[in-house]
Amino acid sequence: MDAVTFELIKKCSKTKARLGKIKTPHGYIETPVFMPVGTQATVKAIKTEELKEMGAQIILSNTYHLYLRPGHELIQEAGGLHKFMNWDGSILTDSGGFQVFSLGDLRKITEEGVTFRSHIDGSKHFLSPEKAIEIQGALGSDIMMAFDECPPYPADREYVKASLERTTRWAKRCKDVHNKNEKQSIFGIIQGGMYKDLRYESACQLVEMDFPGYALGGLSVGEPKEIMYEVLDYAPDFMPAHKPRYLMGVGSPDYLLEGVERGIDMFDCVLPTRIARNGTAMTSKGRVVIKNAAYERDFSPLDSECDCYTCRNYSRAYLRHLFKANEILSSMLLTHHNLHFLISLMKKTRKAIEEDRFSEFKKSFYDAYGEI
Amino acid sequence: MDAVTFELIKKCSKTKARLGKIKTPHGYIETPVFMPVGTQATVKAIKTEELKEMGAQIILSNTYHLYLRPGHELIQEAGGLHKFMNWDGSILTDSGGFQVFSLGDLRKITEEGVTFRSHIDGSKHFLSPEKAIEIQGALGSDIMMAFDECPPYPADREYVKASLERTTRWAKRCKDVHNKNEKQSIFGIIQGGMYKDLRYESACQLVEMDFPGYALGGLSVGEPKEIMYEVLDYAPDFMPAHKPRYLMGVGSPDYLLEGVERGIDMFDCVLPTRIARNGTAMTSKGRVVIKNAAYERDFSPLDSECDCYTCRNYSRAYLRHLFKANEILSSMLLTHHNLHFLISLMKKTRKAIEEDRFSEFKKSFYDAYGEI
Repeated sequence: MDAVTFELIKKCSKTKARLGKIKTPHGYIETPVFMPVGTQATVKAIKTEELKEMGAQIILSNTYHLYLRPGHELIQEAGGLHKFMNWDGSILTDSGGFQVFSLGDLRKITEEGVTFRSHIDGSKHFLSPEKAIEIQGALGSDIMMAFDECPPYPADREYVKASLERTTRWAKRCKDVHNKNEKQSIFGIIQGGMYKDLRYESACQLVEMDFPGYALGGLSVGEPKEIMYEVLDYAPDFMPAHKPRYLMGVGSPDYLLEGVERGIDMFDCVLPTRIARNGTAMTSKGRVVIKNAAYERDFSPLDSECDCYTCRNYSRAYLRHLFKANEILSSMLLTHHNLHFLISLMKKTRKAIEEDRFSEFKKSFYDAYGEI
Repeated sequence: MDAVTFELIKKCSKTKARLGKIKTPHGYIETPVFMPVGTQATVKAIKTEELKEMGAQIILSNTYHLYLRPGHELIQEAGGLHKFMNWDGSILTDSGGFQVFSLGDLRKITEEGVTFRSHIDGSKHFLSPEKAIEIQGALGSDIMMAFDECPPYPADREYVKASLERTTRWAKRCKDVHNKNEKQSIFGIIQGGMYKDLRYESACQLVEMDFPGYALGGLSVGEPKEIMYEVLDYAPDFMPAHKPRYLMGVGSPDYLLEGVERGIDMFDCVLPTRIARNGTAMTSKGRVVIKNAAYERDFSPLDSECDCYTCRNYSRAYLRHLFKANEILSSMLLTHHNLHFLISLMKKTRKAIEEDRFSEFKKSFYDAYGEI
C-alpha cells in the first residue's frame, strides 16, 4: 500500500475538471492544487507560517539544488527536510532530472545516468535513478519523482522515443530501489514530447508499473502555448482516473485553468515567486507591473478583490516605492500576494467544480483577467 | 502642552538608570527603549506585524531618504507615514541633518541651511530647519527632531563651538515654524562634540527653549568607545530629569546598557538589521557569524535562551544554508532575531530597573555575552 493515496471526489459534468483529495503522511491536499516552489529548502522571500496561513498544503523542493547545497546527508541529519525548513505540510521533491538536463554542455547522459558539473563550483557529480531516490529518501519528501529524461523542444521523434523508453527503464530502476520505504511514494513521469502516440506509449509503460500518481513532464519547455494545450487535450486520458495527475512546471493562471479543464490535479512553478521579486503581481484584473509610473500615487490596494495581508495593508504607491528603493519588503509582500492569489484561485476552482460551474467560473475569471 | 509627554517611573538606587514611559498620539513607549530603524519607510526585511508582535512600540524613519524618495508630499497624500507603511505605533523621524552632513563633498553648509546633491540621482536640494520641519510635518511622525549640525570626529574646539551655536539657532528656527502643530513634538539635539563645557553650553541653550525631549547627537561618529562613555558620564546630567533622553545612532548591546546606566532612555541604530543581512546574529552568548563552518551541522537554535520565531523554529545549520545560498529568508530570519534580541534586552533591562537590580543584571549579561 502506497503512503500517498488519492480520492476522486467529483467530476465536472461538462469538462474533464475534477475535485479530489490526496492523502500523504503529512496531511491532506485538496486538488486541483498549486504547489509553491521552495528550490533551496525555502520558498523564496516568505516564511512557512505565512504559507500555512494562506492555505498551502504542499510545497515542492528541488533534489538537484539540495543535493549540491547543503547536501542531502546534512538534511537527513537535521531530521529531514520538513524539520530542517520548518514545514509540517506535505513536500514533493522533483528528481533533479530536469535541472541536470538544463545544464547543457555541463552534463553528459548515458544509460547509467547523468554526469554533470555543479552550477555553484563546477565540481563533478553523477545522478542516476538510484541516486535520485537515495537523495529524495534522505530528504524525506512525501512524494518523490522518478528520475526521468526531459527532452528539449523542439526534439525529433526518434530522440523523443529513445528518451521516453529510457525514462521508462529509469522509472523501473527507481521503483526497484525504493520498494521498502513506507513513508514516501514515487510518482512516474510521462514523457513523449509533443507526439501523441509517444505520450501514449510512455503512459502505458508507466501505468503498467502502478505508481500512485503520474506527472506530465516535458511540457512548458519553450513550446507555443497551443502545442501544450494540444498535448493536454489527450494526455490526461492516458493517465489513470483514480490517481493524481500532475502537470510539471506550470504556474500562470491561464495554464492552471486550462490544465484543470483537461483533468489535471497538481501544478507547480517558480513563476509567481520569481515575478514577485521582479516587481510583477498577478491580480484579478491581470498583471500589475508595480514600477510603472501609473502607480506612483495610486493609493488603492494591489488587487481590490484580494484579502491577503499585502492587499489588506498596503497601497500600490507603497509597493512601488519599496520596489524602486530596492527594499526586501517589496519581494516579501509581492511574493505573499502572488502565492495567495494562485492558492486562492485554486480554492475558487475547487468550489466551482464542486458546484458544477467550472466553465462559467473560468469564463468570468478570463473576462476580468483580460490578457489571455 | 506638547503631544509627547514623559513620566519618570523609577530611578535605580545605585546607578543613573531610570524607568519611564513616553506618551505619544500613537500610544505609550516604555523606556529604556531601542527603536528599530526604518530608513525608507520600512524596517528592512521585516513586516510591521512582526515588529508589533515582538513588542516594538516606536520605530525611527529618515527624513532625508523619504524626502528624496518617494517624497514627503506623496506620503502626506497617502495619509501620512503611519498609514503609508502600515505602522500604528509611534514614529520618530530624524531631521535629515546627519545624512546630509555625511554626504561630504556633495553638500555645502551655510547659516541658512544645507545645499546637497541626492545620492540617488545627483539632483540638487536644499535642507534647512524650516524645510526639515515641513518635511517631518508632512510625514506626520510623533517625534520630530530639530535640524542640527553634526560635527565629525575628530573636530577642533572652535569648529565644534561654532557648530553647536548654529545648532541652537537652527533649533529655535525649528521651534518657530512648528508651534501650532498639536500632534507632533520636536526634540532638541545637544551637540558639543567631546568637549564637556561645550556639551554643557549646548544643553543649557536648548533646555532654555523647553523642548519635550532631548537627544545627544554627534556620538558614535567614529570616536573610541571610551571617549563616548566619557561624554555619557556627564552629558545626561545636563539634560532635564523629567524629559526623555535619547542617544542617537547607538545599537550594540553594550552601548545600550552603558547608556542606560548613565541615564539614557532611548536608542536607535541600523546595526541589528544591517548585521543581520550580513549574516551576523546577536545572541546571549555574543555574536554568531552564521556562515562559519562551525555551524554547518549545528542543529541547535541560534540562541538557546531566545524564544523568538527564528530560534523556536530553525537551526543554525539551516540559517547557515540560507545565508550561503543567498536566500532572502536569511535576512528575514536574522533580522527578526536581532531586533527581538534588542527589544527583549530592553524589556529585561526595564524589569531589572524596576526591581532595582540593574547593575547585577548588566554584569550577568556581560558575563554571558563575553566580548565587551
